[in-house]
Amino acid sequence: MLYSMKQTAIGIDIGGTNTVIGVVERSGDVLLQKSIPTATDGNALAFVENLSGEIRALVATVRQTQGDVQVNGIGMDAPNGNYYKGTIECAPNLSFKGVVPFVDMMRTHFPEQETIVLTNDANAAAIGEMIYGGAKGMKDFVMYTLGTGVGSGIVVNGQLVYGHDGFAGECGHTTLVPNGRNCGCGGKGHVETYCSASGIKRTAFELLVRDNAVHSLLATKSFAELDSKFIYQAALQGDAVALEVFERTGYWLGMAIANTILHTSPSAVFLFGGPVAAGELLLRPTRESMEAHLLPMFKNKVSLQPSQLHAGDAAIIGASALVYAEKTDN
Amino acid sequence: MLYSMKQTAIGIDIGGTNTVIGVVERSGDVLLQKSIPTATDGNALAFVENLSGEIRALVATVRQTQGDVQVNGIGMDAPNGNYYKGTIECAPNLSFKGVVPFVDMMRTHFPEQETIVLTNDANAAAIGEMIYGGAKGMKDFVMYTLGTGVGSGIVVNGQLVYGHDGFAGECGHTTLVPNGRNCGCGGKGHVETYCSASGIKRTAFELLVRDNAVHSLLATKSFAELDSKFIYQAALQGDAVALEVFERTGYWLGMAIANTILHTSPSAVFLFGGPVAAGELLLRPTRESMEAHLLPMFKNKVSLQPSQLHAGDAAIIGASALVYAEKTDN
Repeated sequence: MLYSMKQTAIGIDIGGTNTVIGVVERSGDVLLQKSIPTATDGNALAFVENLSGEIRALVATVRQTQGDVQVNGIGMDAPNGNYYKGTIECAPNLSFKGVVPFVDMMRTHFPEQETIVLTNDANAAAIGEMIYGGAKGMKDFVMYTLGTGVGSGIVVNGQLVYGHDGFAGECGHTTLVPNGRNCGCGGKGHVETYCSASGIKRTAFELLVRDNAVHSLLATKSFAELDSKFIYQAALQGDAVALEVFERTGYWLGMAIANTILHTSPSAVFLFGGPVAAGELLLRPTRESMEAHLLPMFKNKVSLQPSQLHAGDAAIIGASALVYAEKTDN
Repeated sequence: MLYSMKQTAIGIDIGGTNTVIGVVERSGDVLLQKSIPTATDGNALAFVENLSGEIRALVATVRQTQGDVQVNGIGMDAPNGNYYKGTIECAPNLSFKGVVPFVDMMRTHFPEQETIVLTNDANAAAIGEMIYGGAKGMKDFVMYTLGTGVGSGIVVNGQLVYGHDGFAGECGHTTLVPNGRNCGCGGKGHVETYCSASGIKRTAFELLVRDNAVHSLLATKSFAELDSKFIYQAALQGDAVALEVFERTGYWLGMAIANTILHTSPSAVFLFGGPVAAGELLLRPTRESMEAHLLPMFKNKVSLQPSQLHAGDAAIIGASALVYAEKTDN
C-alpha cells in the first residue's frame, strides 16, 4: 500500500501580489494548485497561518479526489528568501518588514515535516530546471530569469551556489554599463535595467527618441502601456525599431551572460521568463554577443537555451524541487 | 622513523620566462627552491624531461641536507592550465603550441606519484590562501591576482570552482566598460585593462592627457618606463595625478569585485600582486567602490584584504597546496 502511494512535495511561490501553492508529484506533475493573495498588511504570522490552512485543505482535496499521497516536504520561494536562515529579508515588494523567520513560522504549523526550505525564485527555477527541465544531469549551469527584474541561479558541481550568507546569484544587479540606467535598487547600469521586460521597454523608448521614430508601431503606446509582448508582435510585423530592440537587448544580455560564464564556466545557460517567448528573435543576438564577449577558450562550448519548464507551473515546480535537491545533498 | 619524516609536496610555477620549483613542507615552509628558464623552443617533451631531472635533484639535495622527506605529490600552475584534463591549452605567453598534455607527460617521469595536478596561477593562489593564508577555514571566498593581467580563483563551499571545462574564474576578462580599452585577448573594456599593473599605468596616462599635467612626477616617464611602483611612490610624495590614479583604479576594481560578489557571495575577497603593495592607497577606494556597487543585503559583510601569502614564495606554495586540496576533496 505504502509503495503505491504517490510521492509529492508542496511547492509554494510567494510573489508580490499572489502566492501559488501546488501539490507536486515526484515526476514534476502538478496534482492540484491554488492561488491566494499575498498578505498586504505586513502581518506575516497571520499570513503563515492562512497559508498553512490552505496547504492542508489542498492536500486533503488531493487525497479525496486522487488517492492517498505522501508529502515529503515543503519548498518555497520568495523575494530575498534566504536559504541558510529560512528568512525573508527586507523584500521591497512584500509588505513584511525587516527579517521574517518564515521557515520557523511554517515549522510550528508542520512539525511533522522534516524538510521545509526557502530560497528566492531564480534559485528555485534553477533547481526546477535541474530536477525536471533541460539541466537534468548537468553539474554546472546557470539560470537567468527575465521578468520585472532579472534573477539568476548558479549551479556548480551539482549544487546551487548560495554563498556565505545565502544570497548568491544576483547577476541582475551586476553593473553592465558604468553610470548607466537607474535601477530600482538604487544602483546604476545594472543588468536588469537593460535585460528585464522593463529594460526591453526602456530600450524601445531610447530608440524611438534617438530616431524620432513616430511611424514605428511602438510609437502608438504610452510608456506605461508598452510591454515586451507588444514589442515582440511589432517585430514579427517587421517594425524596424522593434527588431532593433531585440538586437540591442540580445547584445546586452549576451554580454551579461558572458561575464557570468567567465566566473563559473557552466556548460549551459537557461533563460526563463516572458521575453524568452520571442525565441530566436532574442536568442540569436544574445548568443552572438555571448560568444563575442567570451575568451577564445570558452567559445562554442556553452549552450544557450530557453528553460524547458512549463511557464505556468515553473514557479511551484521549482519550489517543490527544492525538497528533492535537499534530500539529494544529504 | 616514518612518523618523524617531513611531509612535503612539490610546487611548480610555470611562467612565461621562468619556472620555479619548490620543495614545500606541509606547514607551508619552503625547504628549497630553484628557478629554471621556461622552454622557449616549444619543445614540451624536452622541457618536462629537464624539469623532472631538476625536481629529482632538488629533492635529493633536500634529503642530503635536511634529512629524509616524504613527497606526497606534485602541484603545478601554468597559464591556461586545465585542471580536469591536466593540459596547458594555447597559452599566449608560452612557446608550447596547441594543447599540451602536461600532467600525462609528468606522470611518465613520476609513476610513483599518485597526485599530479595542474591549474592556472590565480587558482593556485586561491588554494594557497585557503590552506596557508588568510582564507584558512573559509568556505566561500575569492582571490583576485593583479599583475600583468588580472586573474581570479573562486572558492564555493570549500572547493575551487573549475566549471564544466576546467577554465572557470576568468574575472579579469569580464567586461567592465562596454567598448572600453583594448585587451590583450582581443576583447574590449575587460577588467584587466583597468585593474592590472598595466591598467594602472594606462589610467595614469589617461589622466596626464586629460589634464595636460606636465608638472606631475608621472610626466617624467615614458609609456614604456612608467610602472605601478613608480606611481605609488609619486602618490606617497603627494603627486595629485598619482593619487587620482589610485582613486580611479580602486573605483574600477571595486566595481569588478562587486560584480563577482553578486555572483557567488563570498565572505572575503583577497588581493594579490604587485599593486597591492600600495596598501590602503588602493584598498580604501576599492572598498568604497565595492560597497557602493553592492545590493543593500550584501553591504558591510564582505572583507576585502591583501593576501597573507609571502609574495616571493606564494606561487610555489600555492602550487604545492593543490596536492593537499586534492587529498582533502577525496
